[in-house]
Amino acid sequence: MSLRSNFVRLLKKQYRAVTLQNKCAHSVAIIGAPFSGGQKRRGVEHGPAAIRSAGLVERLSSLGCSVYDFGDLSFTQVPNDELYNIAVKNPRTVGLASQVVSDAVRSAVGAGHTCVTLGGDHSLALGSIDGHAQQCPDLCVIWVDAHADINTPLTSPSGNLHGQPVSFLLRELQDKIPLLPGFSWTKPRLSSSDIVYIGLRDVDPAEYYILKNYGILYFSMRDIDRLGIQSVMERTFDQLMGRRTRPIHLSFDIDAFDPTLAPATGTPVLGGLTYREGVYITEEIHNTGMLSAVDLVEVNPLLGASAEEVNATASLAVDVISSCLGQTREGAHTVIDELPTPSTTYESDSEEQVRI
Amino acid sequence: MSLRSNFVRLLKKQYRAVTLQNKCAHSVAIIGAPFSGGQKRRGVEHGPAAIRSAGLVERLSSLGCSVYDFGDLSFTQVPNDELYNIAVKNPRTVGLASQVVSDAVRSAVGAGHTCVTLGGDHSLALGSIDGHAQQCPDLCVIWVDAHADINTPLTSPSGNLHGQPVSFLLRELQDKIPLLPGFSWTKPRLSSSDIVYIGLRDVDPAEYYILKNYGILYFSMRDIDRLGIQSVMERTFDQLMGRRTRPIHLSFDIDAFDPTLAPATGTPVLGGLTYREGVYITEEIHNTGMLSAVDLVEVNPLLGASAEEVNATASLAVDVISSCLGQTREGAHTVIDELPTPSTTYESDSEEQVRI
Amino acid sequence: MSLRSNFVRLLKKQYRAVTLQNKCAHSVAIIGAPFSGGQKRRGVEHGPAAIRSAGLVERLSSLGCSVYDFGDLSFTQVPNDELYNIAVKNPRTVGLASQVVSDAVRSAVGAGHTCVTLGGDHSLALGSIDGHAQQCPDLCVIWVDAHADINTPLTSPSGNLHGQPVSFLLRELQDKIPLLPGFSWTKPRLSSSDIVYIGLRDVDPAEYYILKNYGILYFSMRDIDRLGIQSVMERTFDQLMGRRTRPIHLSFDIDAFDPTLAPATGTPVLGGLTYREGVYITEEIHNTGMLSAVDLVEVNPLLGASAEEVNATASLAVDVISSCLGQTREGAHTVIDELPTPSTTYESDSEEQVRI
Repeated sequence: MSLRSNFVRLLKKQYRAVTLQNKCAHSVAIIGAPFSGGQKRRGVEHGPAAIRSAGLVERLSSLGCSVYDFGDLSFTQVPNDELYNIAVKNPRTVGLASQVVSDAVRSAVGAGHTCVTLGGDHSLALGSIDGHAQQCPDLCVIWVDAHADINTPLTSPSGNLHGQPVSFLLRELQDKIPLLPGFSWTKPRLSSSDIVYIGLRDVDPAEYYILKNYGILYFSMRDIDRLGIQSVMERTFDQLMGRRTRPIHLSFDIDAFDPTLAPATGTPVLGGLTYREGVYITEEIHNTGMLSAVDLVEVNPLLGASAEEVNATASLAVDVISSCLGQTREGAHTVIDELPTPSTTYESDSEEQVRI
Repeated sequence: MSLRSNFVRLLKKQYRAVTLQNKCAHSVAIIGAPFSGGQKRRGVEHGPAAIRSAGLVERLSSLGCSVYDFGDLSFTQVPNDELYNIAVKNPRTVGLASQVVSDAVRSAVGAGHTCVTLGGDHSLALGSIDGHAQQCPDLCVIWVDAHADINTPLTSPSGNLHGQPVSFLLRELQDKIPLLPGFSWTKPRLSSSDIVYIGLRDVDPAEYYILKNYGILYFSMRDIDRLGIQSVMERTFDQLMGRRTRPIHLSFDIDAFDPTLAPATGTPVLGGLTYREGVYITEEIHNTGMLSAVDLVEVNPLLGASAEEVNATASLAVDVISSCLGQTREGAHTVIDELPTPSTTYESDSEEQVRI
Repeated sequence: MSLRSNFVRLLKKQYRAVTLQNKCAHSVAIIGAPFSGGQKRRGVEHGPAAIRSAGLVERLSSLGCSVYDFGDLSFTQVPNDELYNIAVKNPRTVGLASQVVSDAVRSAVGAGHTCVTLGGDHSLALGSIDGHAQQCPDLCVIWVDAHADINTPLTSPSGNLHGQPVSFLLRELQDKIPLLPGFSWTKPRLSSSDIVYIGLRDVDPAEYYILKNYGILYFSMRDIDRLGIQSVMERTFDQLMGRRTRPIHLSFDIDAFDPTLAPATGTPVLGGLTYREGVYITEEIHNTGMLSAVDLVEVNPLLGASAEEVNATASLAVDVISSCLGQTREGAHTVIDELPTPSTTYESDSEEQVRI
């Protein structure tokens, strides 16, 4: 390697610096929410670390995003957090945690960031949507998940609150929600027409009842099989933004993907989204230009059968978030103005004259 | 856990018992057919045990089906079961076995059950369709398989009868079928317009000739690639039930699925059905309300490379059968009448008043 | 086994020989191009051997093709093959190798063969398309690949020439291509309307610029997600053969497939073609009747994590090539004229009279 070569390399680098221009104008806040109290399997609190280790910050930076990693939130486990008369687990702990998440997301969105919340279990979406809605009251929600997470505390078969956050958020359901300790701060932030589900394939009877009787639009895996993912996304946007554009909150449970792609998660269900469908969903959301906050939840590094499975799941999470924020499969996320043209004659190694 | 808690739990359970109502009205007979004489690989006779171990009865019961497991049929291996002049293997053994299956299915359907026959190799479908047709002469057949199983004894490259059952069943083919010992009891039960194939991707030359020249409707994997599974099912029902509804016999070879999903089978072929396509097919069949009998064949527990592969294959068989009988991905198989409403004030652990 | 049985078997074989008629009229030349200088990972030079070991010749012969295996070409590594002033690796070595490939392909196509070139890395397509175009100046190219391979030597981030061959071939790009030692023999053989890409999902910024600004038709994985593979193929043929039929050069990089299917390759990218999509593409190309040459490149046996992964990748290459040359999933590649009819009475083992 000669000095001259280094010089050319340097020039080339400067050329690049001038002509490459990333289209991502996002200022992105990353908030880790290592919370696991909404369900019973240990390990989901390590989700934020796994997703960061898979290169989230570097990837988003390479897309041209300005990335502000606010680190991990701290949560408190309330002792003896049971209720005598209803099978809801850890209500005060979950309620407090969601309030912490809500505050953090409200601040980040208020400061102008697109807010990425890394779970942790899906109960935290109660907080992230609440905080987001305080800044953007007219937001809409796209909930990508194998499960509807819309049981009420009175219908949940398991009592785990990660299967219930949506019920707390819907105005129409409030007369069905008992007042639980830890949840007095919550307010319903959504109407049933403000949320669309994609990817459902394990729905409890009461959840099915709610989806049907409250007129909530959902696209189960069966619907995706019938309609195709392109049509599903068109209908999603028709529902949510047909009359007006508004901020999108994407709440993405990694278990929406097929377990072969995202094995390291707590409640995997066969027959999920393909990699391409997941990426298509997020590309389309990016293309609206209206994405305002993202939850990426339920990556549980302790549940992979191998390091490969954990890495695959965490990398998938990075792909989902990156695709939301401008990464494309077509190279369109970085723009150049013109192609370099060979113009000068240099000597090659063997002293031939080559035009370059 | 206090007595009070147990009391509430008990009440809740009773509430459930009252308001949950399963839509599955099927009375289901399960017939094990541990027969392997229609092909040469050991192990497919353990298929019924593997499918039962994967939880078939429990799953169907949870859907609200009344399940009657009639156990396994017994089959006889006829000694010296060869023919000098034609390369058909075990003709008397297969013929006798099919007759046993026919009798059992005829009885089960006659008693009002939806009959589920667990194979065993696919030669048994000669028997199950024969027995079913004795009760329901106007039945139609949906044959989901990587292979057409329609060689005649004179065209079969292998001589294995599990690749030939359909040829014995078709009226139009009878002048091409030699009279074999063991098969004198058989009668052709179908016309070529009464059967539709789904999933074909390994078709022998004579089979292709038969499909084309006898006007049999089939959807190869290529057709599914072209049309999509939704359109394939629409066309299937148009063909079979366009003019009148009639009982459906579903003959499902597990090798219709891609080998990555169903590895424990004797003749796997790349490029098969996805999990979602398989489930879609069976959901649609259930939705007609006309399913009358199902064969689930060619699960061979000795051919899995690991216990996981065997379990995956057997569980897939359970999913196929359950989906035929009312299991849905949308939670629609169990109906509730109303959501519980919080109404009483109880004390929580910490003596706060909570409305519940 | 009696003599009589052998006699019948012989008759049957003759019957077969008469009535089976393969539709493949291809005379196929196989050219091994064990070249790896267009990229940096060792092992891709063993691709031709791996594909042959997976049964390529036998498979094509079974389809009725006349197969002429011309063995492997020999390539020379030029010593000190660097350039001082531009980050292009092994230019003289790659240039020479492509010239060797060009000569071989020109001869094979000139002799009337359908030419199958086994890579080796994708830089060789510069040679194979050049040689092919010398015989068929109006050819068109279908390039199936995760990557566009259309960087110029001045835009390539890596300097590897396997990511650049298309830029040398396009007339419209010639003012952007520096004169490199080893490439003085090349001529641009294609206009930007003569090539269509399928499967792109990892496109560099300058490549995206070229695709867009030079009006090159491409179908990324996102496009396949949107349109479906059937529509993609229709549009491909509309573009290339809408006004006139002309010879097709298929340049197929095995990394177009998803890495789960083709793991033994140098630059795998998630979210690729399914097995069924790959086969559909090649079936459609065969159905045009215009396939004239095929490259199958980037199988790297040293990069599989296990023998199974290597075998799966090489077998997939065989399937792709066979499907190009007439193999079908519907058994249509072999034609019979009529079904055998049982006509004579023979004695069976047990002295029963059976009509056969």
